[in-house]
Amino acid sequence: MNLRRLGEVGFLRALVRRHRALMPPSPAGPGDDAAVLGDLLLTADALVEGEHFLAGEPPFLLGRKALSVNLSDIAAMGGTPSAFLLCLGLPSAVPGKFLDGLLAGIASAAAEHRVAWIGGDTVRSKRGIVIAITAIGRKGRRLLTRSGARPGDGIYVTGPLGASAAGRALLARGWRVRSAARPGRWRTLSAARAAARLAPSVSSPRGRRVRDAKEIRYAAENLAAHLDPVPRLAAGLILSRRGLVSAAIDLSDGLSLDLHRLCEASGAGALIYKEAIPISHATRAVAARMGWDPLKLALNGGEDYELLFTSPRRSEKALLRWPLDDGTGPILIGRVTPRRRRLLLENARGKTRLLQAQGYDPFTVD
Amino acid sequence: MNLRRLGEVGFLRALVRRHRALMPPSPAGPGDDAAVLGDLLLTADALVEGEHFLAGEPPFLLGRKALSVNLSDIAAMGGTPSAFLLCLGLPSAVPGKFLDGLLAGIASAAAEHRVAWIGGDTVRSKRGIVIAITAIGRKGRRLLTRSGARPGDGIYVTGPLGASAAGRALLARGWRVRSAARPGRWRTLSAARAAARLAPSVSSPRGRRVRDAKEIRYAAENLAAHLDPVPRLAAGLILSRRGLVSAAIDLSDGLSLDLHRLCEASGAGALIYKEAIPISHATRAVAARMGWDPLKLALNGGEDYELLFTSPRRSEKALLRWPLDDGTGPILIGRVTPRRRRLLLENARGKTRLLQAQGYDPFTVD
Repeated sequence: MNLRRLGEVGFLRALVRRHRALMPPSPAGPGDDAAVLGDLLLTADALVEGEHFLAGEPPFLLGRKALSVNLSDIAAMGGTPSAFLLCLGLPSAVPGKFLDGLLAGIASAAAEHRVAWIGGDTVRSKRGIVIAITAIGRKGRRLLTRSGARPGDGIYVTGPLGASAAGRALLARGWRVRSAARPGRWRTLSAARAAARLAPSVSSPRGRRVRDAKEIRYAAENLAAHLDPVPRLAAGLILSRRGLVSAAIDLSDGLSLDLHRLCEASGAGALIYKEAIPISHATRAVAARMGWDPLKLALNGGEDYELLFTSPRRSEKALLRWPLDDGTGPILIGRVTPRRRRLLLENARGKTRLLQAQGYDPFTVD
Repeated sequence: MNLRRLGEVGFLRALVRRHRALMPPSPAGPGDDAAVLGDLLLTADALVEGEHFLAGEPPFLLGRKALSVNLSDIAAMGGTPSAFLLCLGLPSAVPGKFLDGLLAGIASAAAEHRVAWIGGDTVRSKRGIVIAITAIGRKGRRLLTRSGARPGDGIYVTGPLGASAAGRALLARGWRVRSAARPGRWRTLSAARAAARLAPSVSSPRGRRVRDAKEIRYAAENLAAHLDPVPRLAAGLILSRRGLVSAAIDLSDGLSLDLHRLCEASGAGALIYKEAIPISHATRAVAARMGWDPLKLALNGGEDYELLFTSPRRSEKALLRWPLDDGTGPILIGRVTPRRRRLLLENARGKTRLLQAQGYDPFTVD
């Protein structure tokens, strides 16, 4: 097995094949967003310094994100999170301020989503900080899995895409958020309000002329999406209750790759309407100013943590009528097709091209 | 909070204090070996390259150990493990052979203890391999916690101490186990049989004269204890069933430190009979040859993964009569005293000295 050649998808497939003998009789084993054990959902994720964050990032937001990305996996299965284990790998010299901010951030997200910290471990890790969290949730009325999409089903997302990737790119270009950023009592906010909260902590790269306050606000909106993603728990719960959903996954690695995973698990293909992919004004504005392609950010950027789900055609009206939560409704972006694993992107004139699964695979990038 | 000054114990205490508001109403929150959630026990541990293992160690044994140390936490609570989540952080260039050995080792321990791999995550980690495992188990008849030790209770361990530390020290001195070591079908073996299995893979440091085959076998026994510790699941289960135990903990960080933790949680002190501390012949032999103090290895070495438990005096006969498993019985090494957190070591002539909690604290060493 060569990790770089196989990539994460191939690696996981090889793992699953090799160790099938160990698999429990469970409706969702490795390969889904969370594992199922009786009435519980379990999911584990690790954030590694230098890969998923830099030491200079605001620790409060990092703490929030570390927990939120795990809760997003519970959301994708339609569950309600209840508790988490925190496993910290820390260099001895980690600054007390950083630790304090990190823990305060974790506590803030835990309080917001009512999940209890029940245990874990701290170990030394000279080469950098590692934050590994295991989240535990209860199953919702129906389990949302990746494998139920059927040809003809609509393909939906719960919010705009590409903002997180734009935020990551801004950080790479020298934009910064003050590391002390700890925006008071923090609740699930609309993107615009989160941006307004974060804006005072945002600074542009040294020597770069900022046109106006709008530019900072747009940057802040994308930075907030990247540094403090919101797990779509309410949406997952509603979708699980309504029973209108045939398959679901959370968008952690980019629309094209996660759609590929969903289609593969379902033995189906997909046709995506290019113009229907939701991209926020702030993301378009930043992309235009920086010379980036907003569509590429939305398709391949990753870390959106919106839900991607499919729903039978008969449920379309019901789905689009009711807002999921916070007033935002699901957005129809395409249809499931019978052609296994074949993803197509269709433009407004009806021309299609192949949609490569190019999302963020940690092992095949650079 | 300064991690180096506080050490892990102090750090965890600060964590617990600061975030008590998040604590669930659970009989065992952070601070015990595993968290309790309904009927389940959950525990998470991470092994970090360069801290807990070196890239040159046999990956098969490393895989076994990564799972075993988590199962040991379940054992310490008297539970039966059922499943685990595996979170791997891997550099892109990790050799396929290493990965394959690692997974085969995890699978081997999983099959041996009948735990199912139900999920997890793989992420990239350029700076070194991280293996974070969350193990899930079912509670036994009675929950074993750290907090029930009462003055007068006997203090017991389930097996000899110091062998793992001796093995670690041998590795540091250039002793090696062939990285391909994958000793066939592996079951819970006696220390001597594990050593016999491992011996053909063991090599002494280059240029070092080995006296005889015995020296290799003794080295192998300590190396096996370090590289492939056995979680004391059967012992934990029996102790939980019999209900003779007032407090328990697994010996991951050394007798003196783990005893300190148990005594602190119980609000008690301890008197340890120096001569009663079990140290194997192989550990004594290696220590004598290398000029190490076997008592220090046993008191402060860590990673023994034996259970340390206390039991009321009235249960003493019952405990000592029945073997726990594999024919080895619990070994009485001291008594709980009323003096909170005060640990004493008594020699054969009845002279006592203070026993410092000097076990392996990842943040205060070097």
